[in-house]
Amino acid sequence: MVVVGAGFAGLAAARTLSGGPAEVTLVDQRNFHTFQPLLYEVATAGLDPGDVAYPIRAVFGRSRTVTFRNAAVTGVDWQAGAVLLDDGRLPFDSLIIASGATAAYFGIPGAEQWSFPLYTVADARILRDHLLRRLEQVDAHPELIDAGALTFVVVGGGPTGVEVSGALAELLDVAVRRDGFGFDRSAARVILVDALDRLLTPFGTSGASYAARALGRRSVELLLGRRVRRVEGSCVELDDGSRIATHTVVWAGGVTVAGTLASVIGTPTVTGGRLEVGEDLALPGHERAYAVGDAAAVPWGPQRPGAVCPQLAQVAIQSGHHAATQVLDQIAGRPPRPFRYRDKGIMATIGRRAAIAELPNGWTVRGTAGWLAWLLLHLVYLVGFRNKLTVLVNWSWRYLSWTSGPRIIVGAAADRRSPHVPPPGP
Amino acid sequence: MVVVGAGFAGLAAARTLSGGPAEVTLVDQRNFHTFQPLLYEVATAGLDPGDVAYPIRAVFGRSRTVTFRNAAVTGVDWQAGAVLLDDGRLPFDSLIIASGATAAYFGIPGAEQWSFPLYTVADARILRDHLLRRLEQVDAHPELIDAGALTFVVVGGGPTGVEVSGALAELLDVAVRRDGFGFDRSAARVILVDALDRLLTPFGTSGASYAARALGRRSVELLLGRRVRRVEGSCVELDDGSRIATHTVVWAGGVTVAGTLASVIGTPTVTGGRLEVGEDLALPGHERAYAVGDAAAVPWGPQRPGAVCPQLAQVAIQSGHHAATQVLDQIAGRPPRPFRYRDKGIMATIGRRAAIAELPNGWTVRGTAGWLAWLLLHLVYLVGFRNKLTVLVNWSWRYLSWTSGPRIIVGAAADRRSPHVPPPGP
Repeated sequence: MVVVGAGFAGLAAARTLSGGPAEVTLVDQRNFHTFQPLLYEVATAGLDPGDVAYPIRAVFGRSRTVTFRNAAVTGVDWQAGAVLLDDGRLPFDSLIIASGATAAYFGIPGAEQWSFPLYTVADARILRDHLLRRLEQVDAHPELIDAGALTFVVVGGGPTGVEVSGALAELLDVAVRRDGFGFDRSAARVILVDALDRLLTPFGTSGASYAARALGRRSVELLLGRRVRRVEGSCVELDDGSRIATHTVVWAGGVTVAGTLASVIGTPTVTGGRLEVGEDLALPGHERAYAVGDAAAVPWGPQRPGAVCPQLAQVAIQSGHHAATQVLDQIAGRPPRPFRYRDKGIMATIGRRAAIAELPNGWTVRGTAGWLAWLLLHLVYLVGFRNKLTVLVNWSWRYLSWTSGPRIIVGAAADRRSPHVPPPGP
Repeated sequence: MVVVGAGFAGLAAARTLSGGPAEVTLVDQRNFHTFQPLLYEVATAGLDPGDVAYPIRAVFGRSRTVTFRNAAVTGVDWQAGAVLLDDGRLPFDSLIIASGATAAYFGIPGAEQWSFPLYTVADARILRDHLLRRLEQVDAHPELIDAGALTFVVVGGGPTGVEVSGALAELLDVAVRRDGFGFDRSAARVILVDALDRLLTPFGTSGASYAARALGRRSVELLLGRRVRRVEGSCVELDDGSRIATHTVVWAGGVTVAGTLASVIGTPTVTGGRLEVGEDLALPGHERAYAVGDAAAVPWGPQRPGAVCPQLAQVAIQSGHHAATQVLDQIAGRPPRPFRYRDKGIMATIGRRAAIAELPNGWTVRGTAGWLAWLLLHLVYLVGFRNKLTVLVNWSWRYLSWTSGPRIIVGAAADRRSPHVPPPGP
């Protein structure tokens, strides 16, 4: 059988199947699993790319039944029962599609061309290089500040947008306080824009206002209830006609499945392009094929009939595991069982000693306690003990106020992908 | 005053000057110092790029007198007393040039186009991505083995060539033993080519034969006394007309100063393009300008009159420090003093528990003891405690046989820079 994608959902599925009765091929276009919840830390130079990436072969290299195939999946040939790759095909009897999602730009002109998404390790590295280059450029040419070189606009007030805004503000603090950059800290602006009039919609209102206060203390400016109308190389235009001069737009505006593998396999989709699945996560009309994680409209289960789960790591892990057990059940001749989402709560961090966690029973944890809980949980969920240790080292450095973090510009010039920045004077 | 370059030499110079009477601008095209002796470990997926790169601003961010300028230096205007940058100019009263060297291809056709140098962090990252991609490609398309996809040719039998060959052989061991790659280990070849008939010329003959045996035990094939005549996208041609089918040529064939900044500043040069300097390291005709490190033909000193130092980290550190003291002496009205190289010996590592160190008194240390000494010394010399810790974590993982190292392909497709590899079949 074939599992497509080695994100949280695909990895959970392959782990459940490993050592069992089925021969499994896990296919991914990358050779590593990405721990997406910490990508914003890579982008803001708190962690290294290698800290949040784990080689897939290190997980399954010694598995008797799971083999890894490094290729991009381009489609599914249902007739022949084969997954189509960019360099071949993989026949399957059972199939689990965990192909994930991608940044959603909602057709906003210029957004895809000029803004920086934050969905892959490469995205994070490119954004980090861009941010650090802007600081160096302003240090040599302070006149670029007026053109927007120190104005960082983050679009989207969900967890990713809040986390990247807070981390960006802290990166700017470090730049001025420790790294000897000559600009005035107040000249550097972080602006968070969201169409809704509050942050962190999945959280309660008191959590949202806590996040707003914590961002405010880090001098992040909130522009709530405003839509982005257009993104250009050196500015963002809002729906009230105002324009913000900026060379950096970070896109945390949400994800979509449209345009990914899920949109070409030919089974029905719902809002956001997510694949429609039955209560056991099987694709309609294909009883041995499942869709899980961000790619699928995962039903919440009997506790909330008709509800669809949010696109979260926990949903991906649980749905990937469930689809794998369905495959095992089929092999054993057992009937299908419905998926049940076990809500473990939600978390977001704003910065050092500021995070918020909401548990399903209504409890919330905030501030330093929430932040320590957040650190601990993310360390526990990181794949691989080596990654846990290097992340721990990098975090210790960052948070115990020691010097240095991986604030290095590693990309080649070709990676720059910078918006049109006015050429510096001679 | 201005220090050009933040390698070992420039960093040593700026550190010596920091806090002193002179205002110093340290300029480098990268925003980080590279610990070059460990680049081969990044290339062979033992370390992360961030482990061997240290942000320059983290060193001098709080210095009263040293400021960093991130720019490429394009020349020197001696008349006006200014360093020319790609985006401006920096006036100087005193100048220390520590602009380093680059890979030497000796005019061998195809070498620059098709082979992988190993002189910068970007080089190491690109080579790592290329190596891991070849393994994945062969796993999916074993027929590419005959075309040379698993044949790795290393050109140059100096310390870098020996180190990268040994590490490559160990990476291939891990790939087969732990990562579940299906190819037979004996199908993967590492071939080390050198024009001389022995390895490691700076070392004694017994050290060279030890290295040859240690490489042999790792099934590295040695082709000594052979010159590379031509490099192509899918083969290497030697001077006896033989051709080796390969998709990977690692260039460890030496360095040159020709083509770097040193070649455009207009002062006399010697073999390899190195800048001629006086016994106090001053450039001829410019008593307030010095050249140090790889860029300069650093004289050994009174102990060995007429001898020129090799291009080693120790020479760079000591000459950078000396030039800085000369600047301080000039300010204090003291006369110039000649440079004296303090030889601390040389080291090379072949792989796990195999290294060789030769001390100036003739003592040599080999095997496990040599290797432990090598590990320790490199940890001590790494800049920054955070880097020391992350390297220690990564090494522990690698050498205590735990799973996983940063064996991830992080580059964008545009980074591929792969030689022409036959397209895999459908």
